[in-house]
Amino acid sequence: MSEKQVYFFGNKTAEGNGSMRELLGGKGANLAEMNLIGIPVPPGFTITTEVCTLYYKVGREAVIRQIRGDVQAAMGKVEASVNGPKFGDNKNPLLVSVRSGARASMPGMMDTILNLGLNDEAVETIATKSGNPRFAWDSYRRFVQMYGDVVLDLKPASKEDHDPFEEIIDKMKKDKGIQLDTDLTPDDLKQLVALFKKAVKDKTGKDFPIDPWEQLWGAVMAVFGSWMNDRAILYRKLNNIPAEWGTAVNVQAMVFGNMGANSATGVAFTRDAATGEALFNGEYLINAQGEDVVAGIRTPQQITKIGSQRWAKLANVPEEERAAEYPSLEESMPSVYQDLFSTQKHLEQHHKDMQDIEFTIQDGKLWMLQTRNGKRTGAAMVKIAIDMFREGVIDEQTALLRCEAQKLDELLHPVFDADALSAGTLIARGLPASPGAATGQIIFFAEDAETWAAQGKKTILVRTETSPEDLKGMYVAEGILTARGGMTSHAAVVARGMGKCCVSGAGSIVIDYKARTLTIDGKTLKEGDWISLNGSTGNVYSGQIKTREAELSGDFAELMTLSEKYARLQVRTNADTPHDAQVARNFGAQGIGLCRTEHMFFEGEKIIPMREMILADDEAGRRKALAKLLPLQRADFEGIFEAMQELPVTIRLLDPPLHEFVPHDLKGQEEMAKVMGISLKKVQEKVESLHEFNPMLGHRGCRLGNTYPEITEMQTRAIIEAALNLKKRGITAIPEIMVPLVGILYELKYQEQIIRMTAQNVFDEYNDRIDFKIGTMIEVPRAALTANRIAETAEFFSFGTNDLTQMTFGYSRDDIAKFLPVYLEKNILKSDPFQILDQKGVGQLIGMATVNGRSVRPELKVGICGEHGGEPSSVEFCHHIGLNYVSCSPFRVPIARLAAAHAAIKGNK
Amino acid sequence: MSEKQVYFFGNKTAEGNGSMRELLGGKGANLAEMNLIGIPVPPGFTITTEVCTLYYKVGREAVIRQIRGDVQAAMGKVEASVNGPKFGDNKNPLLVSVRSGARASMPGMMDTILNLGLNDEAVETIATKSGNPRFAWDSYRRFVQMYGDVVLDLKPASKEDHDPFEEIIDKMKKDKGIQLDTDLTPDDLKQLVALFKKAVKDKTGKDFPIDPWEQLWGAVMAVFGSWMNDRAILYRKLNNIPAEWGTAVNVQAMVFGNMGANSATGVAFTRDAATGEALFNGEYLINAQGEDVVAGIRTPQQITKIGSQRWAKLANVPEEERAAEYPSLEESMPSVYQDLFSTQKHLEQHHKDMQDIEFTIQDGKLWMLQTRNGKRTGAAMVKIAIDMFREGVIDEQTALLRCEAQKLDELLHPVFDADALSAGTLIARGLPASPGAATGQIIFFAEDAETWAAQGKKTILVRTETSPEDLKGMYVAEGILTARGGMTSHAAVVARGMGKCCVSGAGSIVIDYKARTLTIDGKTLKEGDWISLNGSTGNVYSGQIKTREAELSGDFAELMTLSEKYARLQVRTNADTPHDAQVARNFGAQGIGLCRTEHMFFEGEKIIPMREMILADDEAGRRKALAKLLPLQRADFEGIFEAMQELPVTIRLLDPPLHEFVPHDLKGQEEMAKVMGISLKKVQEKVESLHEFNPMLGHRGCRLGNTYPEITEMQTRAIIEAALNLKKRGITAIPEIMVPLVGILYELKYQEQIIRMTAQNVFDEYNDRIDFKIGTMIEVPRAALTANRIAETAEFFSFGTNDLTQMTFGYSRDDIAKFLPVYLEKNILKSDPFQILDQKGVGQLIGMATVNGRSVRPELKVGICGEHGGEPSSVEFCHHIGLNYVSCSPFRVPIARLAAAHAAIKGNK
Repeated sequence: MSEKQVYFFGNKTAEGNGSMRELLGGKGANLAEMNLIGIPVPPGFTITTEVCTLYYKVGREAVIRQIRGDVQAAMGKVEASVNGPKFGDNKNPLLVSVRSGARASMPGMMDTILNLGLNDEAVETIATKSGNPRFAWDSYRRFVQMYGDVVLDLKPASKEDHDPFEEIIDKMKKDKGIQLDTDLTPDDLKQLVALFKKAVKDKTGKDFPIDPWEQLWGAVMAVFGSWMNDRAILYRKLNNIPAEWGTAVNVQAMVFGNMGANSATGVAFTRDAATGEALFNGEYLINAQGEDVVAGIRTPQQITKIGSQRWAKLANVPEEERAAEYPSLEESMPSVYQDLFSTQKHLEQHHKDMQDIEFTIQDGKLWMLQTRNGKRTGAAMVKIAIDMFREGVIDEQTALLRCEAQKLDELLHPVFDADALSAGTLIARGLPASPGAATGQIIFFAEDAETWAAQGKKTILVRTETSPEDLKGMYVAEGILTARGGMTSHAAVVARGMGKCCVSGAGSIVIDYKARTLTIDGKTLKEGDWISLNGSTGNVYSGQIKTREAELSGDFAELMTLSEKYARLQVRTNADTPHDAQVARNFGAQGIGLCRTEHMFFEGEKIIPMREMILADDEAGRRKALAKLLPLQRADFEGIFEAMQELPVTIRLLDPPLHEFVPHDLKGQEEMAKVMGISLKKVQEKVESLHEFNPMLGHRGCRLGNTYPEITEMQTRAIIEAALNLKKRGITAIPEIMVPLVGILYELKYQEQIIRMTAQNVFDEYNDRIDFKIGTMIEVPRAALTANRIAETAEFFSFGTNDLTQMTFGYSRDDIAKFLPVYLEKNILKSDPFQILDQKGVGQLIGMATVNGRSVRPELKVGICGEHGGEPSSVEFCHHIGLNYVSCSPFRVPIARLAAAHAAIKGNK
Repeated sequence: MSEKQVYFFGNKTAEGNGSMRELLGGKGANLAEMNLIGIPVPPGFTITTEVCTLYYKVGREAVIRQIRGDVQAAMGKVEASVNGPKFGDNKNPLLVSVRSGARASMPGMMDTILNLGLNDEAVETIATKSGNPRFAWDSYRRFVQMYGDVVLDLKPASKEDHDPFEEIIDKMKKDKGIQLDTDLTPDDLKQLVALFKKAVKDKTGKDFPIDPWEQLWGAVMAVFGSWMNDRAILYRKLNNIPAEWGTAVNVQAMVFGNMGANSATGVAFTRDAATGEALFNGEYLINAQGEDVVAGIRTPQQITKIGSQRWAKLANVPEEERAAEYPSLEESMPSVYQDLFSTQKHLEQHHKDMQDIEFTIQDGKLWMLQTRNGKRTGAAMVKIAIDMFREGVIDEQTALLRCEAQKLDELLHPVFDADALSAGTLIARGLPASPGAATGQIIFFAEDAETWAAQGKKTILVRTETSPEDLKGMYVAEGILTARGGMTSHAAVVARGMGKCCVSGAGSIVIDYKARTLTIDGKTLKEGDWISLNGSTGNVYSGQIKTREAELSGDFAELMTLSEKYARLQVRTNADTPHDAQVARNFGAQGIGLCRTEHMFFEGEKIIPMREMILADDEAGRRKALAKLLPLQRADFEGIFEAMQELPVTIRLLDPPLHEFVPHDLKGQEEMAKVMGISLKKVQEKVESLHEFNPMLGHRGCRLGNTYPEITEMQTRAIIEAALNLKKRGITAIPEIMVPLVGILYELKYQEQIIRMTAQNVFDEYNDRIDFKIGTMIEVPRAALTANRIAETAEFFSFGTNDLTQMTFGYSRDDIAKFLPVYLEKNILKSDPFQILDQKGVGQLIGMATVNGRSVRPELKVGICGEHGGEPSSVEFCHHIGLNYVSCSPFRVPIARLAAAHAAIKGNK
């Protein structure tokens, strides 16, 4: 515990400063700092966060004993600063505000009590001195209500219950037949105070405290107490804030924006928080206290004239009316405005970031109550960072660090057109599985989605859950909505890969495939009805809400260039089509880290020879079918190699269990039998024989290539022939052949043999050659554990973190929904390990395998290609353990690039 | 390469000795050693294994160039020893045998060529000198045939094809109207030789080699060549013999057992290989060469008189006839017998182990051709080791090491009565899933097995595959037969746990549950028909073959006592019932390492409240059902604690996914609906909601206890109450509560909290307490990786190697049959990792976790409780990494105890 527990500030001096956030909280540190840089701030003092921690150790009384003297001393300095009023002197009362202030801003905690120090005697003094009894009694009424609610705990726990004070006000307004609080007379307010105090007595059994010091201690302790209320605990959990931090308490002399026409209160941003434009802006209210701005009872006015004029244009208010009725602060109080303008400039310059400020004007004098870095949209984040870098305010590393990687996501996907939102009605909520907005007509079957798309219709594919068979339908739909499945369900993973909007696990939706309808809480929508999805929030709307495409600015491009300069990790993409490859390349991908060949087999007619192969009874039969697949697959690779020319393309050999390629429903099986010209029974027997109890741990990955080497042979041939064909056209392909699901060195050796032999055969036939690498996916724990052996053969490792997470935890991604929510709620897991890489377990394996692999092959190229490749904290981890690259879905490439730059910059600090 | 490549032996001297197995092979080393200890052995020399390796490097000609001089020199020494005959001298020819001899005896390689050195001229010399033309020409005929077959490669590759030489003989016998080879005259034999040589010329285009040196080099190179033939390669693979070892070649002067009535040949064992009785025994044939004994053309006679008399009694031969027609060697050649008897005694004493010897008597003189440690049954193995220890021949450590742990299995299970075998007909083969023999009436449904058992009927439960619902039926059946599933299928694992005979995966069996029949290759058996199973071989017989129980001898008990003395690892058992606990305790188990509580829930009526719990919609409903389970489960634990009193009992909390407790077929669901008094639809909805894509990685283990803490509460209460109830009766229970499937520290902490709180509540209610431990199963890779964290809370670790193997390899035990056979065949895997612990991967995790766990909790108790706990090489591994115990099924406890002693003894050497 530090020696000093109470820090005074005021009159442009301060005992603390802006760097003392840990001890003074964000608000306290900023108040001190503002004083130090000469900004007018009402005097006050901060009780440190350590006192909060002490409170939870020793309790209320002991804490008060400990700090009483310091607080009294600090209050004395405040009194000295305001020159006259004294705290607790009813003849000349000093009123104070009491505010919480943790290190990080924390909604959910007790926030503010204003006008503390008032009582029946002091209120009369103020009424007299101010000549404004209404102001005095309104302040008193507000104080009793706030204090009763939060310190005396009269605020109801649930929103459904009524606040006892609001009930009293409502009743009085009803009795008097008035609508607005402002219509209450000073006498009404006086009567309200009496009624409020009676309510307090009724509920608590005690009189409302009239001693200002008793009021103060009550308020300070209530702030400490609120640190552990449920909402605060939940917020900390969601935001990874440790409970040990504690909150500080700020006690500050009141200034009044509600002292008449020459007083006001307002909030402002030094730049536009939505667009990032370098334009001072904000709102104010004349004759009001802070809460009125938020309450929305009166329409706040714009601070700047230009802002006011913009507002008027949107609101269709003529200029004359605007200037008369809604003048800007710039117009109504030009001199105060000048003060405010230079102050905000000063604050932004000082903090070197866009500020969100609160101010009060009391009787023509400007007081700053708060400044903090302003929240902003993703677009504003990028623009402000780059602008400030260009302005020379910050350097390029700071500009990079200012941009939160995850927030770039906002910039990369279509969004609802703000003007069109009213066209939709919220009907359900699911998980925000893949960001962006989409609108389209409901369709229930993938093949119908294709048909409709061919007719130029926009569709939303709605399924209970999706499977690989739905792939093409997903591809042509605008968005995907599923009733089951989590953030890492098939639908979610595939949609993110495609950069397509998806809402998954919308549990209230019941789909009737036969009737082609979906029902939500009794409301039925049918095929062809319009719905709209917000994949960034999980909201589902009925109706057609227009969307607009994301536009990537020059600032964004500059941010990416800067990232490039610092990032040491390369960023590749997971892409299975030339289109995805191109998208990712445009986003700056430096190659393909994962090209899943199986997706190709679902496309169009390819499924037929694939199924022929599966149905074949022997190798000869399989070879016959594979021969039909060869030219199709080769063409696929040619397209992808061309899109990625000069950059490496990692191609994973066939991975999923074969049962994913056959239909599991009667209709599909009948169709398959018809197309194949065999009996339904034979199809069903084959499907049955492919059944596995745990397909995730079954006959898949290189276990396929090792039992049916002819598959590996065909795929290798397709890859090498494609590369050689492009070479003839002067295009350089750099294939890296990746063997999936290796757990044993000999699995890889066996595949390597087939690949090298096949490649040599093709080289001989073409009388030409290309360079290629052979490597493996490390996704089975055993492979990671024996990486030093596997690196004898593997020229590269790519960690498949999805499967590695599944097997390291023993979690089936498809079944985790049964316990993950409970685990997160009970804090058994801090986060979903499929979204944020588990560094302790899975990360340990990755680190170990990287070190051991490089111990036998120093030049081993190592990357990851699971879902985590685009998640900033996981990217940072990959940087720190020295991987060469991460690979992620195309739309996450910019995020990963920025995260990689962050990791490098932080690593050098 | 050693300096010396050819080692002479003969005349009681030798350049090598018995310790040089690596260089001289087993046979060569033993031949040298016999000379050194004064045993009469025909002189000869050994070409080393290194020459074989050289052969595969530089080829035939270079090898011959390299060793020609040494071989000639060695042959000179042989000639000197035999005093007269010279190799290659047709006027006084020395004939030799050429035999392969690897370090380990290896069927499948070229074995022996006799009489090498004969040609048209030498044969005449021998005919004249021996005065026995028939012997001379018969020897020549045999030589040409053997040489032609194996050196000149005339032996057909497939058994279906005819040996060209046999065809010639058959034709001659047919032409001459004779049956036996012995009826062929010398002229016939002479003509055969001519025909044989013509056949060689026809097939190879070359004349049969007449130069003895050419013959010799051909034979030597053929031995080397046979090292790499398919059968030898397969054998090495099956027995883990490295290809690099190579084989030696032994060239030895011929002695002839076929030189007349004063000559003979035979094989003998120094003790009884079947029972272990200390009784010299063997068979011989007068006037015969070694191969005749094996060929079975003539009935060999017993060597000892007592053996002869025993044989006569079994064969119903009167004593007079026996003595006249089938005299023992002891009777027919008493002096040679005395030599043989003292020689075998000498050899056994020298080698300190039961010997398997080959000898030839040439003209009244005894020559030893081979001695080696004799193969024996499990029972003989134990008796011989303990007898020799008692006799003072070997010490107790050697006695222990002489007993192969795995072979004890033979002693522990019922076997078919040898006299009753003819009662059955082999109808199918499956996997030897759980050893022993069983006979009973076919039954297809578990509940019927219970009914029939209640009526005193013996049954064999026949299922396509079993599930936990069949448990009780499996328990009452004599044996289990399944059409699907491998060595680690549900049926196999459970049966081994019960010590019950099981044949699994008998693929040719088709079961028609409706008709209550099974069909094998068109043959149909129906419910109630008798079948018999051999779980040690996988054979399935129709008919009733009587079995007899295993009897454990005093020698066995002594072996176990000795094991106890040396073993450092404790051996516990996996047991879920008082009966199993008692069986294991009788076998020497030192506690229960795994008591699976879920099996209890299937027994009798317990399934009903279990299903009520699963069906419950909320915690209150679950608690209601659990309250019904509590007394039942408590009674289970009381029984087990009583059987295991004073010894620790590790109880695993509920582990399997809940869907295992509900019926998946319509009939079962209808029944469940009826019993529960709810609609079929509700049952089906629940079953559907419990469905998982990968149940192995799903909602199971402590994920259940953490989502439904009331289950953990009930189980803890049952355990603690049971222990306290026994305490009242003066019985000490030592419960260790094991939380399954932990992957995250907080999963265990959360469970620990519930367990400790519940236990404290029970202590308070009873006003008494007991000691208990809380630990965890380490079966998820992440738990092993973060063992240092988990050991903060866990008081013991038990590695669940089944699941740990599943997740470390990413293999589903239930699905592995799709690729495991191919992996074993292609040598991608050396063994099934579910049977033999994978030390490189899974073992690495176990070792790492043990070290890391003990680094934070030095007294941490660590064991394994997977299937590997009873597999000798895995037990040895557990010893070496310092575990405290292994736990295995009751019938494997003795095996594990012996293996533990082996590990300790080997570790100290």
